[in-house]
Amino acid sequence: MERSWAPTAERLALSAATTAGAHVPTAGVPAWLEEHRRSGGTVVRRIPFAELAHWSFAADTGNLRHSSGRFFTVEGLDVRRPGTQWQQPIIVQPEIGILGILAKEFDGVLHFLMQAKMEPGNPNLVQLSPTVQATRSNYTKAHGGTAVKYLEHFLDPRRESVLTDVLQSEHGAWFYRKRNRNMIVEVDGDVPDDDAFRWLTLGQIHELLRLDNVVNMDARTVLASAPSVPAGTRALSSDAGLMTWFTGERARHDVHARRMPLGEVAGWRRDAYSLGRADGRFFRVVAVSVEGAGREVAGWTQPILEPVERGVVGFAYREFGGVPHVLAHARVEGGFLDTVELAPTVQCAPSNYAPLPAGQRPPFLDALLNAAPERVRYSTVHSEEGGRFLDAESRYLVVETDEATTPTQPPPGYHWVTPGQLNWLAGHSRYVNVQARTLLAILGTVTAGR
Amino acid sequence: MERSWAPTAERLALSAATTAGAHVPTAGVPAWLEEHRRSGGTVVRRIPFAELAHWSFAADTGNLRHSSGRFFTVEGLDVRRPGTQWQQPIIVQPEIGILGILAKEFDGVLHFLMQAKMEPGNPNLVQLSPTVQATRSNYTKAHGGTAVKYLEHFLDPRRESVLTDVLQSEHGAWFYRKRNRNMIVEVDGDVPDDDAFRWLTLGQIHELLRLDNVVNMDARTVLASAPSVPAGTRALSSDAGLMTWFTGERARHDVHARRMPLGEVAGWRRDAYSLGRADGRFFRVVAVSVEGAGREVAGWTQPILEPVERGVVGFAYREFGGVPHVLAHARVEGGFLDTVELAPTVQCAPSNYAPLPAGQRPPFLDALLNAAPERVRYSTVHSEEGGRFLDAESRYLVVETDEATTPTQPPPGYHWVTPGQLNWLAGHSRYVNVQARTLLAILGTVTAGR
Repeated sequence: MERSWAPTAERLALSAATTAGAHVPTAGVPAWLEEHRRSGGTVVRRIPFAELAHWSFAADTGNLRHSSGRFFTVEGLDVRRPGTQWQQPIIVQPEIGILGILAKEFDGVLHFLMQAKMEPGNPNLVQLSPTVQATRSNYTKAHGGTAVKYLEHFLDPRRESVLTDVLQSEHGAWFYRKRNRNMIVEVDGDVPDDDAFRWLTLGQIHELLRLDNVVNMDARTVLASAPSVPAGTRALSSDAGLMTWFTGERARHDVHARRMPLGEVAGWRRDAYSLGRADGRFFRVVAVSVEGAGREVAGWTQPILEPVERGVVGFAYREFGGVPHVLAHARVEGGFLDTVELAPTVQCAPSNYAPLPAGQRPPFLDALLNAAPERVRYSTVHSEEGGRFLDAESRYLVVETDEATTPTQPPPGYHWVTPGQLNWLAGHSRYVNVQARTLLAILGTVTAGR
Repeated sequence: MERSWAPTAERLALSAATTAGAHVPTAGVPAWLEEHRRSGGTVVRRIPFAELAHWSFAADTGNLRHSSGRFFTVEGLDVRRPGTQWQQPIIVQPEIGILGILAKEFDGVLHFLMQAKMEPGNPNLVQLSPTVQATRSNYTKAHGGTAVKYLEHFLDPRRESVLTDVLQSEHGAWFYRKRNRNMIVEVDGDVPDDDAFRWLTLGQIHELLRLDNVVNMDARTVLASAPSVPAGTRALSSDAGLMTWFTGERARHDVHARRMPLGEVAGWRRDAYSLGRADGRFFRVVAVSVEGAGREVAGWTQPILEPVERGVVGFAYREFGGVPHVLAHARVEGGFLDTVELAPTVQCAPSNYAPLPAGQRPPFLDALLNAAPERVRYSTVHSEEGGRFLDAESRYLVVETDEATTPTQPPPGYHWVTPGQLNWLAGHSRYVNVQARTLLAILGTVTAGR
């Protein structure tokens, strides 16, 4: 058969251009999500660590873990780089989960089966999610829940029906070497209906990505992993030029990250309700009780990571020779398997840097925050994975900039790439971080060519 | 500029088709290497560990290390997989080195500047090597040697002149998460001559790759990393099908590898001259003295890893619909950063398995070894990196097989790929292991289309 990805790219482009789906109007999706939130009746309460069921801090290491030894643990991480060093709590979850979207043609156009899924950390609880989000514990039923719907399509798919399948990293500041399998699988036959699922075109999902807190992180990363952005043939640097820059960045950073006992992490302290930094920066580990959920199990308690404030994540955007580019940053995160990945131009929680003079604030932060409204091509609040992160919202931005704020020759560690180049690299593991993938999911719709 | 790799691929194809170089006849290269071996007058002697200068076993861990803390260490590795577990010595060398080949057009054809380089572990000492082989210790002159020739071309190349630049893994059974930067950089201007260097076309190098122990490992892996194999448009499975198989293989293997003190490794014992297994299998760690070398420094001693016998490394080769394919194996090696990489169909030291009944011998080994001579498309002895491995020879094979020995639907863990698909993946890190890259370097010349 043909090696090429081109047919898939063309079918995704057609789906992206189709804003009227064969099944439901886009405008009805938020109400449908809200209805699921109401009917689910889930209540998420903060509880003291002492009220966690089956979770406890180990006497010797202070690590927070489940009595079954499964799910995940919260441990310590010691990170050393030339000139800097820190320790922090980190989530360790070595299992590779599946984030899978089922695809099917209706009226000749690919539609994607999206789920109204409750996650306790989502600000609004229920968001539009992939067909399947399953850790290995889920599908081997470690917590005695019910079977994961539609999972069978992803466990042993016919190879010809797989449109995308790549291991992607997740938040390197919060997870130790986490990766999930990002899959899109096409089905031919009938798929049984379920009120918690809806078939939507890529164009419909793109419209929903303009709304705050509607499309969840898992859906965003899966869509970004597919060849869903026009490839283009021209760029400021060739693909080979991009590769040599990236390889140089990966080679020049020395990062020594070592797991350590959570109880020995310096600068963090624990009270009855949270484990946080003495200076209040970055994030806290807290505990929640989830009640009345119509989920896999009736109710549960769990630890969860809560950032201290809303983040800012954005790409600077410019055109060179009429070709759209964004400014990528080769970013070190302590939990990455391999030193750096490509991140947005800016990715931070601004108040962590608020006491700093302008010269020491994250590069390009002010250029994005101070842009005139007409230069803001995209501005939407999204939250990160609601199974592990509580109210972890960031404002995602794409902002048109100029030579004065973002020069053609950027400083070391930054590189102009086209959306097509970013999408090319997102087809492989560990090039594009999860925040950049969220922006990549909409990049085709906010650039000049649309 | 154009994103595309196609112009580079076309120029490499032209160089591969050019068997008469602009500078020296291919037939003279082995004699030139031999002349450098003689004039170098290097003598490599085995010495007891006690005669190593600056190297010693640490009192607490038993790790073998240099007094400067640089170069590399020999430590222990504990590997656990479901159903199996082992411990072994392993070389730890976290620095990322540069393997770089300089390229330049003569008479409109790309030529590559290859070096006659002595490495103490090479069976014949001097082999054809990249322009530059430099660890960071080399080029920061940790051992007080002279500057590495031509290195400046690789430290900060103009991006437009880089034809290839990718981090590649090396032997996962012997190195802990080692990777080197594989680079080809094109120069416009004059390059000063040096008698230890020769400009050769890719076609000339391909002819030399038919000779035993002439082209060293570092040269082979760099050439395989470039788009040097015809891409082709058709394959038994699409690129997406290949990716989902590979992602599934990477996801299904649980490998827990942990460094441990060398002194505590079970099943290995040390005498005055070597550290080896009680049963004599796999490899030994020994010490050598290198004298009279005209290398970066006048003479030195070092530890080195010596396999117990010659290996067999081979691809089964078949055509499907007239398109050449080789049978790749998703192979676990304890030192890989990420569980599996694509390896040749067979990669082993046969006598390690000689006591086993036929059913427990490595799959496909007998199919390759028992093939009729006319089905053997490639059979050459190459050695692995001579700076770390002593007489580490393997017979590299490409053998035409059939449905009976190598079915169209291979067993789990194996997948038919085209040379173009393997080359596509070798353009990124950690897909194709170093043994498969050696075979990839010649695969374009041994398949039907030549």
